[in-house]
Amino acid sequence: MKIKLIIEYDGTGYAGWQRQKNALAVQQVIEDALSKLTRSNVVISGASRTDAGVHALGQTAHFITESRIPADKYAYALNTMLPEDIRIRESCEADADFHARFSSVGKVYRYQLKSAPHAGALTRNTHAHVIYPLDDALMRGELRALEGRHNFAAFAASGSVVTDTVREIYGAGLTRNGDEIAFYVAGNGFLYNMVRIIAGTLISVGTGKLAPGAVARAIESRSRLDLGVTAPAHGLTLMEVYYEKPRLLAEAGRINRLL
Amino acid sequence: MKIKLIIEYDGTGYAGWQRQKNALAVQQVIEDALSKLTRSNVVISGASRTDAGVHALGQTAHFITESRIPADKYAYALNTMLPEDIRIRESCEADADFHARFSSVGKVYRYQLKSAPHAGALTRNTHAHVIYPLDDALMRGELRALEGRHNFAAFAASGSVVTDTVREIYGAGLTRNGDEIAFYVAGNGFLYNMVRIIAGTLISVGTGKLAPGAVARAIESRSRLDLGVTAPAHGLTLMEVYYEKPRLLAEAGRINRLL
Repeated sequence: MKIKLIIEYDGTGYAGWQRQKNALAVQQVIEDALSKLTRSNVVISGASRTDAGVHALGQTAHFITESRIPADKYAYALNTMLPEDIRIRESCEADADFHARFSSVGKVYRYQLKSAPHAGALTRNTHAHVIYPLDDALMRGELRALEGRHNFAAFAASGSVVTDTVREIYGAGLTRNGDEIAFYVAGNGFLYNMVRIIAGTLISVGTGKLAPGAVARAIESRSRLDLGVTAPAHGLTLMEVYYEKPRLLAEAGRINRLL
Repeated sequence: MKIKLIIEYDGTGYAGWQRQKNALAVQQVIEDALSKLTRSNVVISGASRTDAGVHALGQTAHFITESRIPADKYAYALNTMLPEDIRIRESCEADADFHARFSSVGKVYRYQLKSAPHAGALTRNTHAHVIYPLDDALMRGELRALEGRHNFAAFAASGSVVTDTVREIYGAGLTRNGDEIAFYVAGNGFLYNMVRIIAGTLISVGTGKLAPGAVARAIESRSRLDLGVTAPAHGLTLMEVYYEKPRLLAEAGRINRLL
């Protein structure tokens, strides 16, 4: 049977999603629990390889098992075994051809900031701290420029091996609650570090360090140098992975209305 | 000179605000840093003795010092010395007769819940988890019944030594964001565990375990037995301590508009 999991995690204590040597990854913690639960060696495939410190509210993964545990019971059983900073939100049976990564039609990310003279205590692991005031209107202008189908070559970490750098951004918006700001970006796919580079660019434009129009210039020039620095990992959260385009577009529409 | 501090903390790692033997309290951590900074023994007085696990976005404290450090510099200096889960949001000079606790005219508390089949990973230290669905309209009815000047004897933990149990609640409201719910209560004072008893009662009424009208009945009967259990400490946050009544009433008005 193929099982789909929707997973929430606080990435603070982990070396990212993907299993690796010499450091604890979220994938490994879940695989170890699943292997114990099903008494067989289980390998799970995640939709997104989030970096160390990055969080998820809706990471999605799948695995194949011979176990006869009912599909919806995995969430309950795993949550009794997993540490409190990893929770299975939902488990269900998936079609035989479902693949958490390759069946996905898009994702939504959130990047959170605290804009204040001093960093927050309660937000220290989830919000990047920006000392200088931020101009929301300028940042909204950059978010608007992301929308549509563009070559985002400038928006990838150097050393990235991806050759096709064209992506479509369906929605990009900003919310503010006092000194806390959140950016939301919905698209059909994201290059390595793309959302953190977008966040760093918004911060640079919002504080006046970089001239407005940076996103449009970088889409045109394809040069990483036209953008801001990569913002810290801990501000980023993978919100949801979509497998139906209408649902993704509805979410993107909601995000666009934040502008 | 008398200095006023506005303090944010994540209460997860502490045995509450008040200094005690054999357990680390927030007060002690700040006093130790201040004593080191001013090279003299500093004692601080906080507005509220928050319990273990309770958070603060706006705890207020004062201390007296002979040090010639400018008042507004304490926040910057202390934040370089304090752990990341305690932050000084602001420091300023206070009048000679200012007292963080006795000059206060009221406070605002927030209680956060996650209403979902599984607990949250990112909200595990800040939101109480409620498995059953909650009826917002029923909970709003209870919040409305809190408002005004009442004898809240039923709303105090047993063993409380306070004799005058009359308090005035200026505002009480509820916000919901998907499966996350927050209650806000603004008043001139709160009995021991009062907000956690209110939260536990709202949960009981919201899930149908307790008949609507519980708050009104308990105000009338003065019996703790008419209310729900005390909700867990980690859902509670002290939002702000007020020293000017007009500001408190403005905040209460804003909270009432949440209803």
